[in-house]
Amino acid sequence: MNNKAVFMQGINNMTIKDIPMPELTDKDVLIKIDTVGICGSDVHYYQHGKIGDFVVEGDFILGHECAGEVVEVGKDVKNLSIGDRVALEPGKACGKCEFCKGGKYNLCPDVEFFATPPYHGVFANYVSHPEDMCFKLPESVSNVEGALVEPLAVGLHASNQGGVKLGDAVVIFGTGCIGLVTILSCKAKGASKIIVVDILDNRLETAKKIGATDIINAKDVDVLKKIEELTEGKGADVVIDAAGAEATVKHTVDVVKTGGTIVLVGMTPKDEVEFNFMKLMAKEAEVKTVFRYRNLYPIAINAIASGAINVKDIVSHEFDFEHTKEAFDFVVGNARDVVKAVIKIQ
Amino acid sequence: MNNKAVFMQGINNMTIKDIPMPELTDKDVLIKIDTVGICGSDVHYYQHGKIGDFVVEGDFILGHECAGEVVEVGKDVKNLSIGDRVALEPGKACGKCEFCKGGKYNLCPDVEFFATPPYHGVFANYVSHPEDMCFKLPESVSNVEGALVEPLAVGLHASNQGGVKLGDAVVIFGTGCIGLVTILSCKAKGASKIIVVDILDNRLETAKKIGATDIINAKDVDVLKKIEELTEGKGADVVIDAAGAEATVKHTVDVVKTGGTIVLVGMTPKDEVEFNFMKLMAKEAEVKTVFRYRNLYPIAINAIASGAINVKDIVSHEFDFEHTKEAFDFVVGNARDVVKAVIKIQ
Amino acid sequence: MNNKAVFMQGINNMTIKDIPMPELTDKDVLIKIDTVGICGSDVHYYQHGKIGDFVVEGDFILGHECAGEVVEVGKDVKNLSIGDRVALEPGKACGKCEFCKGGKYNLCPDVEFFATPPYHGVFANYVSHPEDMCFKLPESVSNVEGALVEPLAVGLHASNQGGVKLGDAVVIFGTGCIGLVTILSCKAKGASKIIVVDILDNRLETAKKIGATDIINAKDVDVLKKIEELTEGKGADVVIDAAGAEATVKHTVDVVKTGGTIVLVGMTPKDEVEFNFMKLMAKEAEVKTVFRYRNLYPIAINAIASGAINVKDIVSHEFDFEHTKEAFDFVVGNARDVVKAVIKIQ
Amino acid sequence: MNNKAVFMQGINNMTIKDIPMPELTDKDVLIKIDTVGICGSDVHYYQHGKIGDFVVEGDFILGHECAGEVVEVGKDVKNLSIGDRVALEPGKACGKCEFCKGGKYNLCPDVEFFATPPYHGVFANYVSHPEDMCFKLPESVSNVEGALVEPLAVGLHASNQGGVKLGDAVVIFGTGCIGLVTILSCKAKGASKIIVVDILDNRLETAKKIGATDIINAKDVDVLKKIEELTEGKGADVVIDAAGAEATVKHTVDVVKTGGTIVLVGMTPKDEVEFNFMKLMAKEAEVKTVFRYRNLYPIAINAIASGAINVKDIVSHEFDFEHTKEAFDFVVGNARDVVKAVIKIQ
Repeated sequence: MNNKAVFMQGINNMTIKDIPMPELTDKDVLIKIDTVGICGSDVHYYQHGKIGDFVVEGDFILGHECAGEVVEVGKDVKNLSIGDRVALEPGKACGKCEFCKGGKYNLCPDVEFFATPPYHGVFANYVSHPEDMCFKLPESVSNVEGALVEPLAVGLHASNQGGVKLGDAVVIFGTGCIGLVTILSCKAKGASKIIVVDILDNRLETAKKIGATDIINAKDVDVLKKIEELTEGKGADVVIDAAGAEATVKHTVDVVKTGGTIVLVGMTPKDEVEFNFMKLMAKEAEVKTVFRYRNLYPIAINAIASGAINVKDIVSHEFDFEHTKEAFDFVVGNARDVVKAVIKIQ
Repeated sequence: MNNKAVFMQGINNMTIKDIPMPELTDKDVLIKIDTVGICGSDVHYYQHGKIGDFVVEGDFILGHECAGEVVEVGKDVKNLSIGDRVALEPGKACGKCEFCKGGKYNLCPDVEFFATPPYHGVFANYVSHPEDMCFKLPESVSNVEGALVEPLAVGLHASNQGGVKLGDAVVIFGTGCIGLVTILSCKAKGASKIIVVDILDNRLETAKKIGATDIINAKDVDVLKKIEELTEGKGADVVIDAAGAEATVKHTVDVVKTGGTIVLVGMTPKDEVEFNFMKLMAKEAEVKTVFRYRNLYPIAINAIASGAINVKDIVSHEFDFEHTKEAFDFVVGNARDVVKAVIKIQ
Repeated sequence: MNNKAVFMQGINNMTIKDIPMPELTDKDVLIKIDTVGICGSDVHYYQHGKIGDFVVEGDFILGHECAGEVVEVGKDVKNLSIGDRVALEPGKACGKCEFCKGGKYNLCPDVEFFATPPYHGVFANYVSHPEDMCFKLPESVSNVEGALVEPLAVGLHASNQGGVKLGDAVVIFGTGCIGLVTILSCKAKGASKIIVVDILDNRLETAKKIGATDIINAKDVDVLKKIEELTEGKGADVVIDAAGAEATVKHTVDVVKTGGTIVLVGMTPKDEVEFNFMKLMAKEAEVKTVFRYRNLYPIAINAIASGAINVKDIVSHEFDFEHTKEAFDFVVGNARDVVKAVIKIQ
Repeated sequence: MNNKAVFMQGINNMTIKDIPMPELTDKDVLIKIDTVGICGSDVHYYQHGKIGDFVVEGDFILGHECAGEVVEVGKDVKNLSIGDRVALEPGKACGKCEFCKGGKYNLCPDVEFFATPPYHGVFANYVSHPEDMCFKLPESVSNVEGALVEPLAVGLHASNQGGVKLGDAVVIFGTGCIGLVTILSCKAKGASKIIVVDILDNRLETAKKIGATDIINAKDVDVLKKIEELTEGKGADVVIDAAGAEATVKHTVDVVKTGGTIVLVGMTPKDEVEFNFMKLMAKEAEVKTVFRYRNLYPIAINAIASGAINVKDIVSHEFDFEHTKEAFDFVVGNARDVVKAVIKIQ
């Protein structure tokens, strides 16, 4: 078994290098990676070398959306066997802090997350990972779907934070990958009205295909007026901003129903946004936020297996391992058209 | 406009009589009833003359699952117009007590509920009802579906009490009408595994058709063993007893997962059941109960309209107004085969 | 029985006039008002003639924090008798809309609230009010305390929205009346650390007296640094802004713990505030808001009666009915010193 | 440093033996035990040799309620130092299973809990324990109070499961140690009425002293009638059974309010109890259970330190290490009088 990985070498540069086979602790399994999705954060590191305070230093392996096959197991591994296919949850939390013990391990200050510096990611042939962060895929769930569990978990967490439930009217701003998995999540929970807003018609068409009940191109129509009309003057039970634009964050409070919930999942380019808190208070609405996700891999896999969620539909492009750099360059150059690109490692 | 109603006249007897047109308060609407479902409680009153402390005295109109058309509106009615088709929520709560103000109006001690003595039901041509308890049906929802909103609301409330959510494994005991609407509700919320237990094969087939992922005939297999197998030894996140048998209530604690929830929605023939509370405590599981429902008509209608729930599939028999007695007699004589019979009033 | 009321007649002007005795519906009681508190909103109307879209037109009776004695009961009144002392919850909600039915009657769009134009308030000898909005005071709770239930309910709702619980560290910005009742509420729920920030030393002293564990004068120390120190670098579980200043709203996100809750209860002078949503997201914190309160009068009265809350301590000044105008002028002129002024009507 | 421990040697027998100093992993601390409380479960093992499926085999060290001083730290220990006094949370959970990750680590199937066979307890001079399960005591909290954090955590969890909140009326059956810590917990959360039922007057006096507002000796009065009277015919918001008697479990449903919550925390001698589920359903009440506790040590310590809870008051007897057997024998022989006995190890 040889191991190779794709290293980012400075801005907009990548190379494939041999790396040693990973070491396994007693509770780890060794995974032969099959599929890795390219996330917006990977592309951001590739183009800018950092996200906020997280700075790529030296050669760095990107990638954290992945699935593959177990090829070796540590001696204390109990629930996985060689040959099992698994999706890898990328964050190893400490298990000891108040956040971990309280069930919010996504907030663990000591989490080691694939492809968040200084922890390398998974654009590699082989990766080791703790058994308890590898989730077995049933036969009916493919490796590509397994890799997509990661972004899907973000959408599920966004809909959880919003308390989206059967019969709800939801507005989603943004049709990037996170916007789309949020649509899938809201639909699977039985939301009756899923109004999706963006400025790209092709994306809106995808949104419609996968579950949006109404799509609005903000270039063409008065968004607030249209949403008011679609919600019979009431506003939406839940408004999820997956666009991260200053304008969309500001609009959330205009379109949320009295007593409703706003969820922020998209990163804003500016840290600060002028926000109408008086309007928020007059509606007694609330703003919830999303930082990654927690305890959602089993649920996502169940939902894909049962057919409640069809996550495959968001894959728009596929590349092979040798062309990972080309894949990144393509994604950079075709941001409007690429919904989700995946790399087949094997 | 003439008004007639079907009166129960003592046990197993019914007759149709003329009655005056209902009076309207300023906030009431007059509804020309189109469809009324026959509920198990109607049949129970018909056969036994009482349910617990509620005793039928004198001639009595049964029926509380209904939909029809608004033909007149009180002068303070704001949101409904003549010609609107509506589903009628049968319980008028006081709006003033702590339960009403706290959002649990189903627990209002002064509620006036159709066909719960001394309040007459709706097997009649015309009924008046407060505007706020009449919920407009969109074009895509039929009157039959509108009448079925009532039992569906019970299933939705049962799944709400259980906290059923995307990806859950649920066990449902019983495939009577409430068992079936509970299946529909769990499926609409994205439950991944819906294991249904009964002793009637034809009912289990219906269960399968409408959303059960696994069906178990308790006559044929060891229920506990089978559920253990289907849940990989873990038990179900939520166990809902819609059978109301002593045996099923007792079994709930055996098949619920550690930390899981049991929901009791079926009426037990005996008040008291020997229950293994030590097992409940060792699992730190909980027992929730269902008394009617609250705030669910709009959600049920949205869910039917969006296609998330297909409630029509539970209707097995249809009769006309003149044959209401025959319908009741048929239901009594064919309990195994009748899932839900409805009366077309017009 | 003669009835008089204090009317606001344009900005900064008031006069006492005879008014007819109120009419009673069958479900109303007639209350001889004993005590009315002066709220910041009363003072705002007195000085500015409006709050947001609510504009005082013509002569107008202010006042909504009150208690008194039942002197007459409508014929359908069941739970109150002549001679009972009661606190009056000022908002009559419709009881019919989805917010009322859902238990959030404070969000009812048709609520009629004392002293919110066009509905007159209670600076009068006699007022009629629905029985279900009048809450009996036990012998151990005085009329002054009864009048203070109203602002206390705001503090309780703020602490509820924040989910304040036993052992929590809470930061409260602002020591106006709402800040102080929020302190009382947090203390009664067992918060371990109640850090209060303001710029007025006398108010901070009051805060300390009634339950603040730590007080910070923002003029003297670096607030963020001090709170970091007091919370051992973690931030507060709940941060409640009862100051309504742009600076305090902005600071909330700096001092809230990861995964914590911000509650906005103070009205900001500006509608929009530049807010660091990226920081909010990085902490996965949430922003909740407060619009009046709901279902809290019984709880507040219980808590006063049991001694869990000592609300009397916030009364700083008392005036009689004839000097209501002088009371308002005094409050306007001594904003720093007046915590809560009350008018004894009788 | 020599280490000795008290070993149970068969039923009703104990001896003190030398044992080796415990080994420390890198994340462990070594604690010089100062105080250990005697729990009902310790006494049960001492008298019967087993609890349910947990059977004492061979010589066994009891004790799990303890506090002491850190005298050595593993090399990866970050937050504790030599000289710190700490309370030890007795259960080491796996940190990897779905229960641990979901924040309910008390339900971890692989937990290793002090004095639950086969894991030895802490009646010893020195014990090693993971840093993250040792909670630093502030200066104002004594070692005895530190040892009592364990039973207090059970009471806190019971009140949490019941959702006890400010202003609530609570009924507690049983005045054993768990009944008493439940009273303390309910009081600290602001419950207005705490009605306590038992058959021992001296215990009821203690209950009154520490926070019960009303005490009922079931030998003297009609419990149901008295509770109905005290709750003005409504029943209690929360009913907590800490007695574990068949009769008290059955009574819970009689005295709980419509929509209220029953919490079972006491172990019943019989596994099965005849329970009136029809009454539970008619009230739409719920039954919650308690298995140990989770995430409550910091809260308990904060509450003791802030004065919200005075846990010292439940200690009735104190013995020294050499007289541990005598202490057990005394507790066995004086069950009615002993509320909580503690052993001073040093």
